[in-house]
Amino acid sequence: MEVFVGGVGMVPFGRHPEVSLVSLLIEAAKRTIEDDGGLEVDCVVVGAMNPEEFCGQGNISAAVVNNLGLSGVPSLRVETASSSGGSVLEVAHWAVASGGFKRVLAVAGEKMTHLPTPLVTKILAEVIEPYERNAGASMVALAAMVTQAYAHEAHISIKRLESVLCKIAVKNHRYGARNPYAQFQKEITEEQYFNSRQVSFPLRLYDCSPITDGAAAMILTSETKNVKLTGIGHGTDTLAVRHRVNLNSFAAARVAAKKAYAMANRDPSDIRFAEVHDAFTCFEVIGAEDLGLLEERKGWKSVERGETELEGRIPINISGGLKSRGHPVGGSGLAQAVEIVWQIRGKVAPERQVKEASIGMLHSIGGLANNNVIAIFEDAQTPPHGFGWAPTYERRIEINRDPKDPEEIKGREGVVDACTVLSVPPEGFPSPLVLGLISTSEGHRVLARAPTGAHFKVGEKVFLEKEENRYVFMKAHPVERLLYKIEKRKENLNAKVKGLLSRWRT
Amino acid sequence: MEVFVGGVGMVPFGRHPEVSLVSLLIEAAKRTIEDDGGLEVDCVVVGAMNPEEFCGQGNISAAVVNNLGLSGVPSLRVETASSSGGSVLEVAHWAVASGGFKRVLAVAGEKMTHLPTPLVTKILAEVIEPYERNAGASMVALAAMVTQAYAHEAHISIKRLESVLCKIAVKNHRYGARNPYAQFQKEITEEQYFNSRQVSFPLRLYDCSPITDGAAAMILTSETKNVKLTGIGHGTDTLAVRHRVNLNSFAAARVAAKKAYAMANRDPSDIRFAEVHDAFTCFEVIGAEDLGLLEERKGWKSVERGETELEGRIPINISGGLKSRGHPVGGSGLAQAVEIVWQIRGKVAPERQVKEASIGMLHSIGGLANNNVIAIFEDAQTPPHGFGWAPTYERRIEINRDPKDPEEIKGREGVVDACTVLSVPPEGFPSPLVLGLISTSEGHRVLARAPTGAHFKVGEKVFLEKEENRYVFMKAHPVERLLYKIEKRKENLNAKVKGLLSRWRT
Repeated sequence: MEVFVGGVGMVPFGRHPEVSLVSLLIEAAKRTIEDDGGLEVDCVVVGAMNPEEFCGQGNISAAVVNNLGLSGVPSLRVETASSSGGSVLEVAHWAVASGGFKRVLAVAGEKMTHLPTPLVTKILAEVIEPYERNAGASMVALAAMVTQAYAHEAHISIKRLESVLCKIAVKNHRYGARNPYAQFQKEITEEQYFNSRQVSFPLRLYDCSPITDGAAAMILTSETKNVKLTGIGHGTDTLAVRHRVNLNSFAAARVAAKKAYAMANRDPSDIRFAEVHDAFTCFEVIGAEDLGLLEERKGWKSVERGETELEGRIPINISGGLKSRGHPVGGSGLAQAVEIVWQIRGKVAPERQVKEASIGMLHSIGGLANNNVIAIFEDAQTPPHGFGWAPTYERRIEINRDPKDPEEIKGREGVVDACTVLSVPPEGFPSPLVLGLISTSEGHRVLARAPTGAHFKVGEKVFLEKEENRYVFMKAHPVERLLYKIEKRKENLNAKVKGLLSRWRT
Repeated sequence: MEVFVGGVGMVPFGRHPEVSLVSLLIEAAKRTIEDDGGLEVDCVVVGAMNPEEFCGQGNISAAVVNNLGLSGVPSLRVETASSSGGSVLEVAHWAVASGGFKRVLAVAGEKMTHLPTPLVTKILAEVIEPYERNAGASMVALAAMVTQAYAHEAHISIKRLESVLCKIAVKNHRYGARNPYAQFQKEITEEQYFNSRQVSFPLRLYDCSPITDGAAAMILTSETKNVKLTGIGHGTDTLAVRHRVNLNSFAAARVAAKKAYAMANRDPSDIRFAEVHDAFTCFEVIGAEDLGLLEERKGWKSVERGETELEGRIPINISGGLKSRGHPVGGSGLAQAVEIVWQIRGKVAPERQVKEASIGMLHSIGGLANNNVIAIFEDAQTPPHGFGWAPTYERRIEINRDPKDPEEIKGREGVVDACTVLSVPPEGFPSPLVLGLISTSEGHRVLARAPTGAHFKVGEKVFLEKEENRYVFMKAHPVERLLYKIEKRKENLNAKVKGLLSRWRT
């Protein structure tokens, strides 16, 4: 069954201190129902990542349908972490395509700005694989390691990649400044970007999307409308980043994109513009490569050439992206979808209207890219693909890493696959915290910590040790190892002396 | 498209101190995939009410698909509070019926026993409408008031209703003792029931389902199998209990049941047995009436006559129900579904096998009955309904109560619609806490608190007062009001004296 877009709507993103999450969702929903001509919806699908911990609100789908005055109508919540806004579309699509419903309201959002940043970071970190979380990895630390791995695989220096990331940040702020729904209504300069503080090397504050309150909504319907949802795909990946074959791309997005392309009978050359999940600037390049919109490992060159600008070959994040429009985690996916529909309808301000906005692609990342949703929206008048695009729907992804962390390390040598220096580590960790994904000589990959604040390069050989439940890596020079051993001996001795003293005292 | 049941499976319910929620879900899923012949699933739908707060686990659908070794396969979580296990079935049904998937794994569960009871109660209370929660209402208090309202509407004394509830508790424990998957493997006597402590009058400890760890799973498929999911419906109701027209029945279940009957082309006389959401014993009678399986307001008579026993006209909760099998909140709905499929397949122990188990009905309640899911499973060989059952699918429910709480109370007189004495109130409230749903003379209904531990009868006239943000009710005798006024004066005077003293001291 064909699925069309009825109405769309969203609330301006930013700080809404006086308003509850439910009120934000209701406002987005009301605007959407109005946009659809006020017709009655027969099902409500709500997306939110963690309303319980952000807002103390349980059973949110019942609260939404109640506050819309639609008690009786079925309503449920869908959650896939930060792609929840994409997943509501998927479930709403199923509901319509099943023939069970005529008009399904998808509404998604999050309210986060009322909480202190460390608490928000802690709640967001609950989606990280427990071992990696306990080793000190936060979302930005993992994203920083992915960024380093990308630079290595793309044969580009960190310095040059930084200038690419800067271009993305500046671009997204430029378009955000033209979008009345964006959290940041201001442009930034290259200087401001490079002056912003390092959060997790090589990512700066201006590489990260902000903490945001916001909500968006869309009605999917079986009735013919001028915009169609032609393809939607969803893919997952290992929870642990260290278990992935490739660190520089996201398999979950590739699986999802393949399905979306096959369903829509489209290929990357058909896509005119895209909304890509730039929670961190580097994800915009990686995401566009995963979708096939930019050339594999050469996406950074396209950014340098301005191909992703409004006037470029494939405009990306002309909304301002998550970076500038803001990132209410459970709501972003649906906000991207609303933006795409507005662009296709030609309803955005002329200074940011994509010229040939006939087919747009949505790319939403859940967690650290282990729950991704890709969708294709089209002007219903667009002619179908000229030739038969062969659907190659791969469901499973390749995992050739041993998912078990090694009990012992034999060779005591490893290679840095990715690394970061985290300036603001989670509670209980020293600052700066140096984390690395290290491949062992036996073929495992572990998440390890360096004892000093040293910087490491991807591909660098290191010494690897195991202490109780954690792995430690250090520079491969024998002196480093000696110093580390002396340090450990001193610690052990201190512990013994303390033990003896306390026994003697009692 | 017709939707069939591929495989089913569950883990024994109870306390699983050494095991994580993800492990419980994986175990249930593995048993289910095995039951289905080990075929590959192409989508995973996970149900859990609050894994973030119960277990600190975010993005659980990605964790499940990862630990099943199915990375790549789409996976999302569905949540509707305590009916999440029912809602995963609904979404899995949409996924199959949409034609997008061949074999969808629905898996749902919860892990709760590792937390102290007051914390569990607090987390569960997040689904209660904020005003009612802040007034001291817990789930059991609201259920107790519904129980009182039922007794009043059914013209039955509380004493007689207690003996009906006792019969339900004894019955469900009797069958739980025959179910190897049940948390409580023991029968209880009437004496034990009446000796169990009052939790919220008239509900005793043995009227309440326990805190449980557990998980269940089911594969829905488009391939022909011997059991079919023929109907599924979902309905919502006002979040606030006080806004409902009727307190003695659940409109959300009625809306959902109508849809399920219409979809399956069945009527209540076709149903051979049911799994009804007996989170509190009284919900079993109310639920069976809402489904049309027992006569309106006379369901209690059917219980007295033994009609809901294994050998009765319409066996209910032969699994032991939530009461005895246990209630891992997000998992119960799916466990009920698994039980129904086992019964239809004739796969349970002879001492609890329903004789003509050709058509079974699932009834799952989310929150305080504001998010309910009803489903019908059938032996695929069962002949269709002989006559045309006219589908009467009502989507909306009647709300004629003003949803705004009155700013002032004019008449200062009210009638008790429902009332309870809560022995273990939420933190910060005095024990016992007397709560009442009181209709005002202007037609509002408010949730009010009585200042003393007095018992009230439904239908009793009371005095109603408003103090700042809360309502207070008391016996209608003028002396009561006088005493209350004196008490308030004393309190005010005390406050004033304290204020003066503290000012004088500084």
